[in-house]
Amino acid sequence: MDRIRVAVVMAGGSGERFWPLSRRSTPKQLLPLTESGQTLLQESVARVASVIPPEQVFIITSAQIRDAAAAACSVPDGNVLAEPCKRNTAGCLAFAAAHVLARFNVPAEKITMAVLTADQGIGDGAAFRNCVSAALEDVERQPSLGVIGITPTRPETGYGYIELPEDLIPASVSAEGVAVYPVARFHEKPDAETAAAFVASGRHLWNSGMFFWTLSTFLAELGHASPVHAAAVESMTAALRVGDAARVESEFTALPNISIDYALMEKARNIVMARGEFRWEDIGSWEAVSRIFPHDEQGNVVNGDAVLLDTRDSIVFKTPGASETAVGVLGLDNIVVVVTGDAVLVMPRDRSQDVRKVVEELRNRNSDRL
Amino acid sequence: MDRIRVAVVMAGGSGERFWPLSRRSTPKQLLPLTESGQTLLQESVARVASVIPPEQVFIITSAQIRDAAAAACSVPDGNVLAEPCKRNTAGCLAFAAAHVLARFNVPAEKITMAVLTADQGIGDGAAFRNCVSAALEDVERQPSLGVIGITPTRPETGYGYIELPEDLIPASVSAEGVAVYPVARFHEKPDAETAAAFVASGRHLWNSGMFFWTLSTFLAELGHASPVHAAAVESMTAALRVGDAARVESEFTALPNISIDYALMEKARNIVMARGEFRWEDIGSWEAVSRIFPHDEQGNVVNGDAVLLDTRDSIVFKTPGASETAVGVLGLDNIVVVVTGDAVLVMPRDRSQDVRKVVEELRNRNSDRL
Repeated sequence: MDRIRVAVVMAGGSGERFWPLSRRSTPKQLLPLTESGQTLLQESVARVASVIPPEQVFIITSAQIRDAAAAACSVPDGNVLAEPCKRNTAGCLAFAAAHVLARFNVPAEKITMAVLTADQGIGDGAAFRNCVSAALEDVERQPSLGVIGITPTRPETGYGYIELPEDLIPASVSAEGVAVYPVARFHEKPDAETAAAFVASGRHLWNSGMFFWTLSTFLAELGHASPVHAAAVESMTAALRVGDAARVESEFTALPNISIDYALMEKARNIVMARGEFRWEDIGSWEAVSRIFPHDEQGNVVNGDAVLLDTRDSIVFKTPGASETAVGVLGLDNIVVVVTGDAVLVMPRDRSQDVRKVVEELRNRNSDRL
Repeated sequence: MDRIRVAVVMAGGSGERFWPLSRRSTPKQLLPLTESGQTLLQESVARVASVIPPEQVFIITSAQIRDAAAAACSVPDGNVLAEPCKRNTAGCLAFAAAHVLARFNVPAEKITMAVLTADQGIGDGAAFRNCVSAALEDVERQPSLGVIGITPTRPETGYGYIELPEDLIPASVSAEGVAVYPVARFHEKPDAETAAAFVASGRHLWNSGMFFWTLSTFLAELGHASPVHAAAVESMTAALRVGDAARVESEFTALPNISIDYALMEKARNIVMARGEFRWEDIGSWEAVSRIFPHDEQGNVVNGDAVLLDTRDSIVFKTPGASETAVGVLGLDNIVVVVTGDAVLVMPRDRSQDVRKVVEELRNRNSDRL
């Protein structure tokens, strides 16, 4: 029996930090936040296309944006799945595993799953695909959970880090030259000093949040680390096979709201890391967008037509919905100005994390339309 | 023969510093830039109403906004006059004097003219009217040119100053207690050090830009100071009396483009100043608007619905045309954010003087619509 490779793209986030670009109906992953003009989700699906065929690519998202996501992506409509509610990444991947097992009537050890996200900017498609292939091959060769680590280019405190053993001897090297290492341990988001030490060590890489495993290894490790999730995969798979949507929903809803890092990865015994040699950004803030888009001579990122005078290191983002709106920014540095057809946001570049407070206050005052 | 008092409201400015509020079709004087909700022009006309009846109030403006100005104000349509082109305040007042002389068939010494502007915020209507009455009475009593001086409340470098004689003895005091002084000299906009010395002296008052004179004194003084303007008043008056609009236009267009301060006041021999005891602002910048509108506890001026978080000493101005636009400002101090139905401007408070550069650049890129 042939091995089946599937990709699961987690696309359930809301991305409130990108308000007013992001809305409940058009969250971050449905926005064109890189210079390609494609949405992050479209990019994510296109990027993996030559490694895994579209019929084997699944998108897990919310009911609210399922149709928009399905319409935007070149995967079969039935592969775009809405979670009944939010149960964090552990719930999302249990849900995805059950759907994949129910869809392909083959043993779990014959299915390899690549878990990707829909909110990353990745520079070099070929290097990315080589890395994904290396990770898939490695976890298919021996039972392990695979991740992709990115060589850090700055002491970023917003990412988790993967620590490699001191000897830095790869467990394998793929035909394309991608090294796969055993993982010594994971580190949560560090403080600035620790981040600087990590970058200097050469042994700490950014955790890209992508995962690779055969479903048999996944289920076995999950059975140790979080039996409730492992049991839910089994019962949801059975329910899906008989078309019992209500049982899927009740099983899923009963799951705890925890991340896959906490539920599985931190407790797992055999983790390997493929070293990603491509530009990678978690597009979680305007800072990240600024790193991806081209800059003018004054260090500004300008999307859409706007006049910037005596303005430096700023981000001015105008959506097509605001194409008839003249935008002028004068005499400001390190500022973000976002103009859509029905909203305007102005803030310093480093205040992305507080945008949700603005959204909350606007919701309190107005309505749900925003 | 009874004396006739007329008011001339100069309303020809463009106010580009208030873009995107101000446009070619709705310049500053047609904007509600004070908390009354009325436009500056409406306020100006209403303020003088109890001193001078509407039939004797004239508005001098440009052809482009004449109809809008006439529609907005409670003066007869025929009293709203469009200048054929821009010839500064000296040209404007020669034009106005000719129209007044042609309209009222009485000798020039029987007509007193109050020259007001349409871009000032004035706090106390009664004190203003008492001051205007005192100035009118004084210039009717003996041949002189009258101005209104405002006791300075800060070392403003953006205004001209009026210097009083050292003895500070009034030439007259009106029944309402308004003192009228002889003027020693005028000073152009001073530097900061000079402005501070002016404020400390007690003898230097802000020049409010309002003028008072009988038309006979005006013409006599103008005949000395700028014969070309005096001659133009006579020939335009004659042309208006026979309905020769073409001759009015050619006479007007031939005038030099200079201010009344330069053409007349700096050379005039007998100038008096009524001391204005009311809050007065030349609304020439967002700084001035900020001084007029009420502030919240963080020192912000907010017009229209907007969410400001962690933002201080800023001005957020949203027009009714943008009522459906959600506006959020986060983590900024001393900023101006203007949002209209078709434009957004963001800048520090002290950069008003450079807004025209933004407008120029937008015009270059787009069209004349802005």
